[in-house]
Amino acid sequence: MNSTSNQEPWQWPDTQWQMLVDRVRAGRPLKPGTWKNGARCAFAVSFDSDHETSDLRDGGRSISRLSAGQYSSRAGIPRIADILRRHDVPATFFVPAVSALLHPDEQRALCGAGHEIAMHGWIHELNSMLPAAAERELYLRASDTLTAICGERPVGLRTPSWDFSDHTLAIIAEMGLLYDSSLMGDDDCYELVGGGQPTGIVEIPVEWIRDDSPYLAMNRFSSLRPYTPPAAVLDIFIREFEAAYAEGGLFQLTLHPHVIGHRSRIWILEEIVRLAKSRPDVWFTTHRDLAQWVSEHAD
Amino acid sequence: MNSTSNQEPWQWPDTQWQMLVDRVRAGRPLKPGTWKNGARCAFAVSFDSDHETSDLRDGGRSISRLSAGQYSSRAGIPRIADILRRHDVPATFFVPAVSALLHPDEQRALCGAGHEIAMHGWIHELNSMLPAAAERELYLRASDTLTAICGERPVGLRTPSWDFSDHTLAIIAEMGLLYDSSLMGDDDCYELVGGGQPTGIVEIPVEWIRDDSPYLAMNRFSSLRPYTPPAAVLDIFIREFEAAYAEGGLFQLTLHPHVIGHRSRIWILEEIVRLAKSRPDVWFTTHRDLAQWVSEHAD
Amino acid sequence: MNSTSNQEPWQWPDTQWQMLVDRVRAGRPLKPGTWKNGARCAFAVSFDSDHETSDLRDGGRSISRLSAGQYSSRAGIPRIADILRRHDVPATFFVPAVSALLHPDEQRALCGAGHEIAMHGWIHELNSMLPAAAERELYLRASDTLTAICGERPVGLRTPSWDFSDHTLAIIAEMGLLYDSSLMGDDDCYELVGGGQPTGIVEIPVEWIRDDSPYLAMNRFSSLRPYTPPAAVLDIFIREFEAAYAEGGLFQLTLHPHVIGHRSRIWILEEIVRLAKSRPDVWFTTHRDLAQWVSEHAD
Amino acid sequence: MNSTSNQEPWQWPDTQWQMLVDRVRAGRPLKPGTWKNGARCAFAVSFDSDHETSDLRDGGRSISRLSAGQYSSRAGIPRIADILRRHDVPATFFVPAVSALLHPDEQRALCGAGHEIAMHGWIHELNSMLPAAAERELYLRASDTLTAICGERPVGLRTPSWDFSDHTLAIIAEMGLLYDSSLMGDDDCYELVGGGQPTGIVEIPVEWIRDDSPYLAMNRFSSLRPYTPPAAVLDIFIREFEAAYAEGGLFQLTLHPHVIGHRSRIWILEEIVRLAKSRPDVWFTTHRDLAQWVSEHAD
Repeated sequence: MNSTSNQEPWQWPDTQWQMLVDRVRAGRPLKPGTWKNGARCAFAVSFDSDHETSDLRDGGRSISRLSAGQYSSRAGIPRIADILRRHDVPATFFVPAVSALLHPDEQRALCGAGHEIAMHGWIHELNSMLPAAAERELYLRASDTLTAICGERPVGLRTPSWDFSDHTLAIIAEMGLLYDSSLMGDDDCYELVGGGQPTGIVEIPVEWIRDDSPYLAMNRFSSLRPYTPPAAVLDIFIREFEAAYAEGGLFQLTLHPHVIGHRSRIWILEEIVRLAKSRPDVWFTTHRDLAQWVSEHAD
Repeated sequence: MNSTSNQEPWQWPDTQWQMLVDRVRAGRPLKPGTWKNGARCAFAVSFDSDHETSDLRDGGRSISRLSAGQYSSRAGIPRIADILRRHDVPATFFVPAVSALLHPDEQRALCGAGHEIAMHGWIHELNSMLPAAAERELYLRASDTLTAICGERPVGLRTPSWDFSDHTLAIIAEMGLLYDSSLMGDDDCYELVGGGQPTGIVEIPVEWIRDDSPYLAMNRFSSLRPYTPPAAVLDIFIREFEAAYAEGGLFQLTLHPHVIGHRSRIWILEEIVRLAKSRPDVWFTTHRDLAQWVSEHAD
Repeated sequence: MNSTSNQEPWQWPDTQWQMLVDRVRAGRPLKPGTWKNGARCAFAVSFDSDHETSDLRDGGRSISRLSAGQYSSRAGIPRIADILRRHDVPATFFVPAVSALLHPDEQRALCGAGHEIAMHGWIHELNSMLPAAAERELYLRASDTLTAICGERPVGLRTPSWDFSDHTLAIIAEMGLLYDSSLMGDDDCYELVGGGQPTGIVEIPVEWIRDDSPYLAMNRFSSLRPYTPPAAVLDIFIREFEAAYAEGGLFQLTLHPHVIGHRSRIWILEEIVRLAKSRPDVWFTTHRDLAQWVSEHAD
Repeated sequence: MNSTSNQEPWQWPDTQWQMLVDRVRAGRPLKPGTWKNGARCAFAVSFDSDHETSDLRDGGRSISRLSAGQYSSRAGIPRIADILRRHDVPATFFVPAVSALLHPDEQRALCGAGHEIAMHGWIHELNSMLPAAAERELYLRASDTLTAICGERPVGLRTPSWDFSDHTLAIIAEMGLLYDSSLMGDDDCYELVGGGQPTGIVEIPVEWIRDDSPYLAMNRFSSLRPYTPPAAVLDIFIREFEAAYAEGGLFQLTLHPHVIGHRSRIWILEEIVRLAKSRPDVWFTTHRDLAQWVSEHAD
């Protein structure tokens, strides 16, 4: 990385850790004084539609895992779309381009129902490990692919790694994206700062806590198991929502069709939606409209 | 695997991931308009009788783990058989041939009580890693072994890996099996499609969610622990059943005698059976009869 | 191990897996028609007093882990001894010889209070990995060490690995031990069979399910964490006890002073004892008296 | 380490394990007959303010993890400080020097609010793996850094490893620190003994059980997940507190702003504080005042 890279971190000069921290930073808070229509709180639910790419990005050797990827689209998405429709909740789907190519009708139907399709890399590659040119080329190609399928160019990115390489921020800026949703610097939106310079790009922060995978994912060859009882997962999401409501802030949630889409879990989505719908002053929004609003209305 | 195999997945041409996905695919849904006797829902419970093969397939070095395998047959199976008998529930036991050779009377008694004995490989080998000829030879030998013990040729397979190699589907087709139960492409049965061609083979999908092991298994040398409270496991199974009932679909469950057969867990089986038995319109079936029904009655 | 050891298990001739399985086997059930004083059920609680040896056996490098070992003796044992005394429950402590040498007064006080001190190896070595001569020599030396400290020769062994090497059973037989408590072939006691021959040695089976460690242990450099809520641990122990009571069998429990001895966990021991004490027909026994009883009264 | 270091632990002469155990030992109990103002119980809550150093100490490559470190200071600390202020509870913040340099105003504000800032290494280095000279130099530099920022020299250390190297105790003694808070030899305070010699240094013991991280931390590249329901974490802390209260002892708790500072978890801190505040006879104290009290009032 630089001349100090063969040192242990405890041997670094202060300039080294300061440089590392300054690459990307949470800047100006983008918490508006008021939400759309005077709402007290914003509710932005998103789905990472990884489908078959969860296994393809590792080589695509497991036919069983690929079948679970097909389940994600075949059984998970219809259950999700049905709940969103019945409760009239717009959502954002972050879709790897290869997922979209395997399931183009799914993306068109979701667009047609008023949901947002946004970027999630090419084949769910670990973007933070890629050469800069490859990362850039894959994002550009993914953007073109989604545009061709949905008829609209995506304005937001969730990086597949939920992480940035040293080059990600510059690529996002070059592409003119409205927002990113991959980092964890706050509960509410903020402006991304790169190398000390405000970028004008909105960050909609994610968190493992507001994600179904850490509690419920399974990987037979590691020790990941769905150890947390589903009712406990809902309890965590409710606590996150209630505190966001109390603070007048943003409740952002990330779910995965191959995780939440199962019969014993889909009710979690419906319950958290029901809870929020029981309040008269919650704004249900896509990530795109959220980013637009906070960039225009932050204090 | 092919000329692109030394590339990273993000470097693949589209033909490569498309080819990998197309090897085996969930095809025509096999959800019948009505279940046998006009039932609303089908209930198919299965047991993977791995017994001592859980350790033998890794080399059989641990005398303690082999004793736990003996427990599976000595203490687990009688408790399971007793519940199935008292509640009049037929079930399917997937039995590695070596398990059957170590416990032939167990298999004969289960057959005699109306349960189905089906294939689960030779010695619980990781079939998805085997050379094609070895995988084929072991299935053929396992089929002959079960036939010799039970007096009836098995018509279904659950692969020991819960996964397919690139050759598994062709071997199943060659053997003329009625069904496989190893993949995860849907909640309800479907027809397996190989290389784009319908095969006529019924897939009865499994899921880690409807399996006792992910929540309750223990491997002292890895980090697998029985972290999930048993009551939470039952809650998950109930949610899967209730949604299957509401959808008029299939509730399929996989348990392991060495996991569920313990005093503090066997009640989970009895409770889920009791719940289903409290409904007048649930069809309790073996996997064989289920596969037969859906292949004849799918819309 | 033999001429087939360079084969994969699925390539083995049947003689190979049969030989591995036959090394040690659960034989004649030792479930008596009646328990002492006509009790309906036996309650045998044990403690593995590993103390500092948990870390010493791995090299003793961590001063923090050694301090947790001292906690085990300094804070854990007094809480345990107090509960056993107040409820008048005899117990068995399996003590590595090095633990006993570090804490000889603890062992003498437990003996003096009517508890049993039994063998648990020398320094909690992984006995199943040792050369035969070393395993034998360490058991003999451990037996002499406990005898010198307690004034009484131990009659039972729990192997530190909770597993046997190919030589363990022969060493136990040579030492003339009354019982072993390391294997998992049943819920109730049984006679150990070696190479097809009954040995007259009583096995008092253990289980990870009836052990506090799988749910509550922590190893910072692996992924082991105390993820299971303590109330759920008690629930599992209660279910094991109630089923043993219903079956008229044995309830055997293994706890660790460094795990259960903490303020937020010690109540689990008291609750399970209280529950059993609320029944008039439970026999509370050491492992030694249990082994003696079943060897004399099995049907 | 010495001439026996190429032996396996089961081959060691007794002098070897005795020497290892004697390096650092829990000595004289420092449980006073009475707490300040006649209180029945002491309540000492601490926060390890690792912030960005959690990732920097491993190389600082992950921009996402660094953003979560910024969250710790930006979102977590204000929520914590607010609860402590509203309930009038003093606390101790163990702050790596690099954290303090990145967030100096945070440290000054906490000092100004009556909290204690104490040492937690330079950059959260694994101190137990360092050369002796490096460990010493980093502690000295960290002490100077905190002094420069806060205007007061720290008197206590929590080692970043929660562990000692063979040199840590001597460095603490040389620096004249009042207390350490890294080891686990008891529930209540004790005097550290090194090589058999009392040192006069107070140990305020920590425990993974009274730490939010084991239950709630997440590391995407290992299997660590926040599997324990938050309500179960509070239950454990309550049990620890209630037993400390019953014993008239010390309740010590360690939380992390990047773990507990989230909306769905911060309530755990408030609830345990509320419970303790509901008793008239609990002494809320910093670790510094606690160490001072027990060193002056132990029986």
